[in-house]
Amino acid sequence: MALVDHRGRVSYRREVETPLNVKRPELISSLVNNIRGILKESGLKKKNIVGIGIGVPGPVDSEKGIVRYFPNIKGWEGVPLKSILQARLGIKVALDNDVNAMTLGEYRFGAGRGVENLVCLTLGTGVGGGLIINGEIYRGSTMCAGEVGHIPINEKGPRCNCGGIACIERYIGNRYVLDRSKKALGKKITLERVDILAKQGNKKAKAIWEDVGRKLGIALTGVVNLLNPDLIVVGGGVSKAGELILRPLRQEIRARAMKDQAKHVKVVRARLGDNAGIIGASLLV
Amino acid sequence: MALVDHRGRVSYRREVETPLNVKRPELISSLVNNIRGILKESGLKKKNIVGIGIGVPGPVDSEKGIVRYFPNIKGWEGVPLKSILQARLGIKVALDNDVNAMTLGEYRFGAGRGVENLVCLTLGTGVGGGLIINGEIYRGSTMCAGEVGHIPINEKGPRCNCGGIACIERYIGNRYVLDRSKKALGKKITLERVDILAKQGNKKAKAIWEDVGRKLGIALTGVVNLLNPDLIVVGGGVSKAGELILRPLRQEIRARAMKDQAKHVKVVRARLGDNAGIIGASLLV
Repeated sequence: MALVDHRGRVSYRREVETPLNVKRPELISSLVNNIRGILKESGLKKKNIVGIGIGVPGPVDSEKGIVRYFPNIKGWEGVPLKSILQARLGIKVALDNDVNAMTLGEYRFGAGRGVENLVCLTLGTGVGGGLIINGEIYRGSTMCAGEVGHIPINEKGPRCNCGGIACIERYIGNRYVLDRSKKALGKKITLERVDILAKQGNKKAKAIWEDVGRKLGIALTGVVNLLNPDLIVVGGGVSKAGELILRPLRQEIRARAMKDQAKHVKVVRARLGDNAGIIGASLLV
Repeated sequence: MALVDHRGRVSYRREVETPLNVKRPELISSLVNNIRGILKESGLKKKNIVGIGIGVPGPVDSEKGIVRYFPNIKGWEGVPLKSILQARLGIKVALDNDVNAMTLGEYRFGAGRGVENLVCLTLGTGVGGGLIINGEIYRGSTMCAGEVGHIPINEKGPRCNCGGIACIERYIGNRYVLDRSKKALGKKITLERVDILAKQGNKKAKAIWEDVGRKLGIALTGVVNLLNPDLIVVGGGVSKAGELILRPLRQEIRARAMKDQAKHVKVVRARLGDNAGIIGASLLV
């Protein structure tokens, strides 16, 4: 949670852990209490706050402010979080999913400033994606658009968590990269350690990031040919590997995507780091 | 060429063959003469015509009315076709590529009426695609969007005409389907004949259409997860196979795409047939 001004500057930030099995009423009360706490500590009054923007980990109806469900937390089916929080806090609330919030943040104040059409990715446990089309977040017909992570890159292949087959996430989601790293570098390896080794020049570690970049580049070739975007912004934990992933990724797009589209699109790292989602959430208001 | 009224009704249609090696000045003069001929035959005057809409076989700058190039006809790089025709005919001209025109036609007067987000495909020599996003043609950052045919469906595979690898067009473009048909059904087979055999229950012929449907379904799984559209409209020659292609295509999307997206999207045949592009071109005006 943070206080963000109208230029996207974060003046106060507070991190609150969410216990894995927290129930909905307690989580909502925790939200309310923490927001009140932030106002108190910062010496601000309600009338100083334009609104509360929230990025949630799952699909939402952002027009009505209703959580549709959370894939990883039970008990949130159809919860009208916007009206619940507005009633308890007396402040205007706006809601979207966390990847759309991050996309909006990078678009307005980060790596995506000044473009019209943008694809934003987060590489983590899952591979999330958000789309800016003609200068606005594109949410799709039932608010589910942007799932770059679930583009198949093979006709046949391993089954993905989403129920699909050979989705890009099934190859480059954290745990699959970690599995491959363990085979190549030993059981005690972590992704942070793979990154350090790769930056020190370890060939096996570099090959792992290169494979992530190449595979992602294949999925993005389809996106680039389909959407002809100005820019692809890559964020999330694994993106800290930087050019070790982005270079093979760009090579793959250049080698496989159509000339006009490949020539035009730029692929860069996200710029706002952990603040992208928070800054984007403020923009929802 | 046709006369189309404001409700998308075609009242007069004339087909003009384009010789393979026709030069640009002759082709433009042929356009001008045929348009004058249509006016004469129909007894209409310039003042009765709102404008001339044209769908061209290649990328255009539709705002400026400039042809960027034609992949299959030489000598059309950067031709300001709109202003050339306006100067010679004294009638307002609007320009877009042929697949966008077809997409617009199906969207406003065909299978796509009433939806917000639509993917339109034409199956032929190539696999063309057009996108309606939030109720409007989406052209992309350099007017190249919509290339559904060049989404890769495998990491490794045959090289495509576009320079890419394992693009869906490389598997289901007419000549590749014909190659497979010849192997299965004999050298003298045609795609029309494959369709007749399949509809008569020939197992080998049915398997060919089923394979086209499944492979296209894999490429469209990525599109459905990414764009969360209301509708996919399938047109072009091969689409005449109808349910023999569409049934396995839908099965593949249902089996592989994410639940919300798969449940929402409908896949149907184009409705306007050969008139889709002409009706769509009229809408450009």
